[in-house]
Amino acid sequence: MSVAPVSFAASIAADWGTSNLRVFALDDTGKVIAEAASDKGMGKLTPPDYEPALLALISGWLDPNRVTPVLVCGMAGARQGWIEAAYRAVPCTPVGGPFARPKVESPLIDVFIVPGLSQAEPADVMRGEETQIAGVLAGRPDFEGVICLPGTHSKWAVVHGGRVERFLTLMTGELFALLSTQSVLRHGMPGEETDEDAFAAAVRKTVVAPTDFAASLFRLRAEGLLANLSPAAARSRLSGLLIGLEMAAARALWQDEKTLVVGTGMLARLYGRALMLLGADAELVSGEAMALAGLAEAFKGFGKETA
Amino acid sequence: MSVAPVSFAASIAADWGTSNLRVFALDDTGKVIAEAASDKGMGKLTPPDYEPALLALISGWLDPNRVTPVLVCGMAGARQGWIEAAYRAVPCTPVGGPFARPKVESPLIDVFIVPGLSQAEPADVMRGEETQIAGVLAGRPDFEGVICLPGTHSKWAVVHGGRVERFLTLMTGELFALLSTQSVLRHGMPGEETDEDAFAAAVRKTVVAPTDFAASLFRLRAEGLLANLSPAAARSRLSGLLIGLEMAAARALWQDEKTLVVGTGMLARLYGRALMLLGADAELVSGEAMALAGLAEAFKGFGKETA
Repeated sequence: MSVAPVSFAASIAADWGTSNLRVFALDDTGKVIAEAASDKGMGKLTPPDYEPALLALISGWLDPNRVTPVLVCGMAGARQGWIEAAYRAVPCTPVGGPFARPKVESPLIDVFIVPGLSQAEPADVMRGEETQIAGVLAGRPDFEGVICLPGTHSKWAVVHGGRVERFLTLMTGELFALLSTQSVLRHGMPGEETDEDAFAAAVRKTVVAPTDFAASLFRLRAEGLLANLSPAAARSRLSGLLIGLEMAAARALWQDEKTLVVGTGMLARLYGRALMLLGADAELVSGEAMALAGLAEAFKGFGKETA
Repeated sequence: MSVAPVSFAASIAADWGTSNLRVFALDDTGKVIAEAASDKGMGKLTPPDYEPALLALISGWLDPNRVTPVLVCGMAGARQGWIEAAYRAVPCTPVGGPFARPKVESPLIDVFIVPGLSQAEPADVMRGEETQIAGVLAGRPDFEGVICLPGTHSKWAVVHGGRVERFLTLMTGELFALLSTQSVLRHGMPGEETDEDAFAAAVRKTVVAPTDFAASLFRLRAEGLLANLSPAAARSRLSGLLIGLEMAAARALWQDEKTLVVGTGMLARLYGRALMLLGADAELVSGEAMALAGLAEAFKGFGKETA
């Protein structure tokens, strides 16, 4: 669904993930004057599908007398996306050129795709989160410390002087989804209820003794069979075991640095809670529209970057 | 498919797992005189299906003039199986009564289901492996030490004086299957090739620094994208990370005890290799027909147990 803005867009920002496409019409001050979304995520598209999917949402925003720049972040720039946007190697600013330039049929748009970030040693990559980090830094340009972005694959980025120095990816969210819905443990955790004490105890125990993590998994099943462990306690303990293992793995990052946990909803709250349990200097920051803020910020230096 | 024995069975042993049913006709010395199998595993059956599935394989072995005892081990005794065979609490001999007795229509069979084992603290259960352990001990009645049974859920049992003192279950096999076929890591490990050095390095590294396990997972994906990590190295490193985490979790068991790794095929060889890399006193024992050996052994004291 697309709503026509009062005036044409000066520029357009697009957050193009695996599952969804969200677009924002910006005026020449970077203010959002209209937005739209569809389910045409990268996971459903082949390269020729991208331009029509984009135009379906933004065509009403385009001034017929000029070319409107469209800045895209996210998985549209992956190898399996529209066109690959090569990674930029850290240390570097979170968002910057060279942007990838897919060929488009329409004479009314120029499309620029934000590169992801890479780290050579230890090997790591991100694509999409770099723009959220830029969005966080747009609101806190002097921030020094660690930015944690929980998700299917959580990212921990060390930021100094406006640059991402290094980062770390953990598959905690994907492991939780696999174990809670695909493994034998799924039998013990139907429903959606949670148990805060079970979560906290599992976080603390796993950070102190990460070696016990592996042995603790099947115990969830056994306690379900032998001791009627509740689904809420089972699910929250699994969550605490996995997030505790993440906190142990990321300890060198959060231990001596101010840490911002960026996100909305349950997952970000659990990460914030875990860090506070462990005595970290952590703060929960709303992740609403951080990708948009990062894209809007990127537009400011856009003439230079794309020259 | 069932082949009629030369004479009727004195007794029948059945290994009834989640996926398959295997049955063996024994003479009065416990020797196998015929065997048969079907895909009627516990996962495909409701309680009324069990007796027909069993009779379909064994009816030709039954003496029409007497009642033949059928001893069953495995998941047929689970809560979702034929009839629940209550767990026996360790410490105890691996196999013993009271056996569960499902009601049967046929006047020619009496069915006895072997109980699984349970441990109250830390909570743990096994069902099926106890009979394999009995089979190992039938061939080595004086064994003292640890029996390791790799599988989807591997079991480590501490055995002294012919009894299982305690045991530990790890979900390593299930985690490997989920991560290598369902997670983002699947893209980096098509095919079946392996890399022994990558396996060994990952085992050693994870046992020394188990905290690095979580951070090492996504690195497989990143090295695939940035450094062309081969599928063989990726798969073997994932296997080494997971088995290394298991070895770290089970260290208190294998460190000071003789350890028998029971099984056939690649998985048992990997466990044996990991233990030897770590300097454990480990021996690989063929797991062929261990459940049968355990059932045959159980029949020896059968008059007493079922009275």
